Amino acid sequence: MPVDTIFWDHGSIKLVDQTLLPAKFKYIRCRDVKTLWHAIKKLQVRGAPAIGIAGALGIALGVKSSKARTGKDLLREVTGIARYLASSRPTAVNLFWALARMECIASRNSARSVSDIKRMLEREALEIIREDKEACRSMARYGARLIKSGDTILTHCNAGGLATADYGTALGVLFEASRQGKRIKVYADETRPLLQGARLTTWELMHAGIDTTLICDNMAASLMAKGRIDKIFVGADRIAANGDAANKIGTYSVAVLARHHGIPFYVVAPLSTFDLNIASGKDIPIEERDADEVRAIGGRFIAPRNVKVYNPAFDVTPNGLIAAIVTEKGIFRKPYAKNFKKYRRNRPY
Amino acid sequence: MPVDTIFWDHGSIKLVDQTLLPAKFKYIRCRDVKTLWHAIKKLQVRGAPAIGIAGALGIALGVKSSKARTGKDLLREVTGIARYLASSRPTAVNLFWALARMECIASRNSARSVSDIKRMLEREALEIIREDKEACRSMARYGARLIKSGDTILTHCNAGGLATADYGTALGVLFEASRQGKRIKVYADETRPLLQGARLTTWELMHAGIDTTLICDNMAASLMAKGRIDKIFVGADRIAANGDAANKIGTYSVAVLARHHGIPFYVVAPLSTFDLNIASGKDIPIEERDADEVRAIGGRFIAPRNVKVYNPAFDVTPNGLIAAIVTEKGIFRKPYAKNFKKYRRNRPY
Repeated sequence: MPVDTIFWDHGSIKLVDQTLLPAKFKYIRCRDVKTLWHAIKKLQVRGAPAIGIAGALGIALGVKSSKARTGKDLLREVTGIARYLASSRPTAVNLFWALARMECIASRNSARSVSDIKRMLEREALEIIREDKEACRSMARYGARLIKSGDTILTHCNAGGLATADYGTALGVLFEASRQGKRIKVYADETRPLLQGARLTTWELMHAGIDTTLICDNMAASLMAKGRIDKIFVGADRIAANGDAANKIGTYSVAVLARHHGIPFYVVAPLSTFDLNIASGKDIPIEERDADEVRAIGGRFIAPRNVKVYNPAFDVTPNGLIAAIVTEKGIFRKPYAKNFKKYRRNRPY
Repeated sequence: MPVDTIFWDHGSIKLVDQTLLPAKFKYIRCRDVKTLWHAIKKLQVRGAPAIGIAGALGIALGVKSSKARTGKDLLREVTGIARYLASSRPTAVNLFWALARMECIASRNSARSVSDIKRMLEREALEIIREDKEACRSMARYGARLIKSGDTILTHCNAGGLATADYGTALGVLFEASRQGKRIKVYADETRPLLQGARLTTWELMHAGIDTTLICDNMAASLMAKGRIDKIFVGADRIAANGDAANKIGTYSVAVLARHHGIPFYVVAPLSTFDLNIASGKDIPIEERDADEVRAIGGRFIAPRNVKVYNPAFDVTPNGLIAAIVTEKGIFRKPYAKNFKKYRRNRPY
């Protein structure tokens, strides 16, 4: 069930406002880079691959109205826009990867005419979307091999169509397994504070006709103890060279619980989520968000307004707790550092 | 900081409506047993010791207007009221313990006059409150020995003044440690779905001037990984003969995470929470509550209205994960089964 989460529409960006789901399915249009920056910041568009796409489209959008006369001038503008968009959210590496790829196009072609470069930037952004769609399908096919009929699967946050240009990373695997006729049942963690599991994942899974049950994050352990979870599939926002994976806050908690109960814990992410320049998860910057995201739900305060809050948006799962990492190029197993390197040598990306 | 959570007020029961906290501190008055039943069911009064007290006061309240002519007739009524109140919530054993204790008074004295028995029942309920206050103070003194200055403590749900007649079980320990001049810092899990941690625990701790930080349940693991939690203190709703402890959903999750990170996990509960008639936690009935508690927060739906939900109110922490159990008679350590028995032989309760 691919959702048109974010796309290029006659020279502007259209995206589903994910903060309104599941109550309202509504598109917003970004006609300038500032609107897009706020859409990323406020999580109207979220999910590592989707914000990568947002970044790429943002460059195409930003240069459209440029008055630059030379390719060099345009490159300076591209760099400025990239720096601005990069300041929206720090953890998911796909954003920086996509921005760097766009800058590279502008830089490599700076001798060309401004209108040529603008056209090339738009084409590159659309190519990133096309590649993401293909990667989703490929990850899904590889990942579905790990699922057998009758499995009950736990997932955390939303790694579905709404997080990508197609039908998702971790959820893509579940959609594909279901399409192949495997009978599966899925428990979705609600994923406080922003409830992406309750709001987005259940909505996607139910639309796909998959047997879905919503739980609070703190109920997963109890299900595991009862032997009611066979496998865990989650996405990722950044994967270090040693396989440590940053993902939505609470993912590490699920991984530790999975280890205690002997349940395999799988990460599904495209190669654009890999950051092989950093050795381990310790180097991944973790975004801390506003205290009121925890103190209030839907504008209604559920705690004393002046209580101190710790609100990290992500946590890091050490590679040792990850049974396998599913990518569009296949399934990686431990030792990740070595196996990533082997892959890198053969096919640089 | 003891709160007058529930008390006998000129022949009726007054209790803080805990569903309104922290926005409103408001007492409601129960003039009949049905109102009290609903107050327990809806968690207007909650916490194992407090609902034990509610049960005892409920019997005193129920017999007040009785037209029974003989002690035997009154006993039949007491049994009926007890059965009715016992149907409100199934997990915390304090309710059944208090009701049985009240029935025992009516039964042992059934040869006496009806007015005598009514007076004795009221006196017994007040005695249960007095004992609970004393137990809180005693648990707090024992538990505070486990805390040293500089400790950062994690707690789950609310085991404070609002859960007891005095200043709580797990929180009582923290209040006492702080009173003794030990510098402590506390992280409170918000405790979905009903947010007792966010609403009640932060409110109590802040009133006591303790350094308090609110987190979502799924953030605890991340703090533990960073070495920012020294000890965990929680309450309990029922403790089996082998030391397995039922407590608010999510407690087991915290216990597993504590084990993974080598952090001691302590349970604080009065002996009225012990159910030595059941061998292990497997025999503790776990209440499952309405799906809308998860689907909606404060009346606002955060998930598709028709999504399936699993909503257990409690989970069971196996004795192996519990470093010690603090009671009003001292600190129990492993092996619990043996040590409980030794104690039982010396001082039957």
